[in-house]
Amino acid sequence: MASYENMSKQELLSEKDKLQKEYDEFKSRGLKLDMSRGKPGSEQLDLSLDMLTVLNNKEQCVVNGVDCRNYGILDGIPSMKAIFAELLECDSENIMVGGNSSLNMMFDVVACLMHAGFEGCEPWEKQGGIKFLCPVPGYDRHFGITEYFNIEMIPVPMTPNGPDMDMVESLVSSDEKIKGIWCVPKYSNPQGITYSDETVTRFAKLRPAAKDFRIMWDNAYCVHDLTDTPDKLLSIVDECKKYGSEDLPILFASTSKITFPGSGVAAMACSKNNMAIFKRRYQFQTIGYDKLNMLRHVLFFKDANGVKAHMRKHKEVLAPRFEVVVSKLNSQLGGLGVASWLEPNGGYFVSVDVPDGCAKRVVELCREAGVVLTGAGATYPYGKDPHDSNIRIAPTYPPVSELEIAMDLFCLSVKLAAVEKLLAQ
Amino acid sequence: MASYENMSKQELLSEKDKLQKEYDEFKSRGLKLDMSRGKPGSEQLDLSLDMLTVLNNKEQCVVNGVDCRNYGILDGIPSMKAIFAELLECDSENIMVGGNSSLNMMFDVVACLMHAGFEGCEPWEKQGGIKFLCPVPGYDRHFGITEYFNIEMIPVPMTPNGPDMDMVESLVSSDEKIKGIWCVPKYSNPQGITYSDETVTRFAKLRPAAKDFRIMWDNAYCVHDLTDTPDKLLSIVDECKKYGSEDLPILFASTSKITFPGSGVAAMACSKNNMAIFKRRYQFQTIGYDKLNMLRHVLFFKDANGVKAHMRKHKEVLAPRFEVVVSKLNSQLGGLGVASWLEPNGGYFVSVDVPDGCAKRVVELCREAGVVLTGAGATYPYGKDPHDSNIRIAPTYPPVSELEIAMDLFCLSVKLAAVEKLLAQ
Repeated sequence: MASYENMSKQELLSEKDKLQKEYDEFKSRGLKLDMSRGKPGSEQLDLSLDMLTVLNNKEQCVVNGVDCRNYGILDGIPSMKAIFAELLECDSENIMVGGNSSLNMMFDVVACLMHAGFEGCEPWEKQGGIKFLCPVPGYDRHFGITEYFNIEMIPVPMTPNGPDMDMVESLVSSDEKIKGIWCVPKYSNPQGITYSDETVTRFAKLRPAAKDFRIMWDNAYCVHDLTDTPDKLLSIVDECKKYGSEDLPILFASTSKITFPGSGVAAMACSKNNMAIFKRRYQFQTIGYDKLNMLRHVLFFKDANGVKAHMRKHKEVLAPRFEVVVSKLNSQLGGLGVASWLEPNGGYFVSVDVPDGCAKRVVELCREAGVVLTGAGATYPYGKDPHDSNIRIAPTYPPVSELEIAMDLFCLSVKLAAVEKLLAQ
Repeated sequence: MASYENMSKQELLSEKDKLQKEYDEFKSRGLKLDMSRGKPGSEQLDLSLDMLTVLNNKEQCVVNGVDCRNYGILDGIPSMKAIFAELLECDSENIMVGGNSSLNMMFDVVACLMHAGFEGCEPWEKQGGIKFLCPVPGYDRHFGITEYFNIEMIPVPMTPNGPDMDMVESLVSSDEKIKGIWCVPKYSNPQGITYSDETVTRFAKLRPAAKDFRIMWDNAYCVHDLTDTPDKLLSIVDECKKYGSEDLPILFASTSKITFPGSGVAAMACSKNNMAIFKRRYQFQTIGYDKLNMLRHVLFFKDANGVKAHMRKHKEVLAPRFEVVVSKLNSQLGGLGVASWLEPNGGYFVSVDVPDGCAKRVVELCREAGVVLTGAGATYPYGKDPHDSNIRIAPTYPPVSELEIAMDLFCLSVKLAAVEKLLAQ
């Protein structure tokens, strides 16, 4: 098909007529589909059903002489720590296991550093005017945390190798008000980009102007491969050891998209120095997190290899969905010059860039015809995409049959919005 | 037995010799007993064993069309809210169900109000120099939260009817830096005092100088009766409705001491105005708490009556333990003039007052002979009991046979410390 840009006004008008007719047909179907969030589908949830009953007697509850039904153990049971240590490629002693939400742990970390000074610095909240770097497009709930705490967010463009490290280095080394950066280093949300070895090494070599600068390394998709040739992420913990910057990164992960979202187990990993700051808060905040749920996970998986084997089952469910998205994009938008996208090897999303000023319109068109997408702008700080061009597609939740319809509507809406824009010029 | 105060020096010296011999015998037994924390014993934990397996299939996970295995529902599933609403005597719409820890919810509430201004006031952290009233003796983990946030703590003496309300009213109405008060209104920690109707009404009628004053109403022991004639606590929610002060109290409860400590479910209850402040924070903090664990509780209990029936089983286990404590205190310390205590109708503790300056010594004597008690001073803000006289006894965890030995040692240690003090005068 010819690129829209080369069409005459007459050709565009007739294309628009055709698209509008197709769109009206969609609208008349009364669809009700949701592609807004990175929620696992029910087929995926069923993969972990046995976890409901794997912990079923009193004897299993006692681990190393500790009755996991009772209070205690602030940082989690050793066997759960061991699994996360392997997934996050660090030592068990650097792990703290939390509740059901890594987002909550990130929130707590930021809340902690807002309130408690470290590295000889005043608490962030007392310093005032502090900033975070936000690789864009990125994860809306990360940006929500920094927004809640009135932390100024500075967007940093993503490249195919991760955040623009020239920009990161230049900003971080020159501005001591910059205290952190949000990273999803493997299969990034929403683009599915895995940071290159060079990017990880440059993170480890950062020499921030602020002594109290930290890297929020949200390894949410560490085992969420979609192909047999998965991306490899260099271990930031190992790299930081090489360059004497062990205190820089704080790692996060959870089993929310491995077992049950909302009833998974979350963990963080960081240096001893960092852990001491967080534990000083955690010891006032709670007596300990849900050890029985940790135990369920340990009994269900046995070890990190068990997690990896389980993720291959998720892959079988998810890969066809991502194939639908990418093949629909290729077949319906390829060559039109109205959209670009990346084909991810893992993660939960496909990120699509449409012509500047068209993202909101595409989301609106889809919504009016019954398909809910993530709000346009959500992938940018403050919900403001300066180009109004990025849309996050979350293909995991709907069944394949619905996903196909939703993607047809999406591609149609992109074309319609693009034609509308060209005609308005 | 004669009161020690009436003994001559000679009599005291010979009493001391006798006590010291008994104590040395204890020491030689190499005891290792723990009465330090309010932990349920294993017999209690066994009462909830069926909860491990009550949720065992996919169909049970779907409630009102919502798959509880997946993300969502920030404030908890309706059936769990309904149970807490009945236990806390309020409407379901005023309930937010949280994770496994009501302590964590209290921490989050204080953290929230430190950061977010409300009632047209600046955030607590910006106002600076803020204070909380702390009825004493009280719960060390409450005081820990306010200490962590650098909130000045003002002790208010407990009376048999609750906190000294003359003092509370006078302070709260005159000092706008006073922003809150910690209350355990039923079977208070550690004394087991239930606030009288008049006390609850006076709380509802408070007219604080600070518009942003709140009552932290930790109803931790709302269903934790030890007798067939349990204390009755007036509903603060109802009272506040009468006096137009619905925004004053924030209620907390959990199933930690009903099912499994550490794997229970916590909740808070408050007015719509208050809830809006907290939800504004919670929506950034998490996507939702563990709904499957809520579901386990709902399936296990059915309703609030199920909780109450279950608590009668706890009573069967706990009442004999409390009887041991009280009868040992009566038989071994009664009439000596060296200790006073209250006999609670519920809760988790017995509070003992020993002669001024003797509490640390008693705890030390017990520890050296192998029985760990809650640290002396723990029941006061900053861990500082100005009279060094209050000791909290936690009889729930050890088996009855061990408890008897521990109480023998405790009574002996009280006598020894008292004689030592009298001889040093």
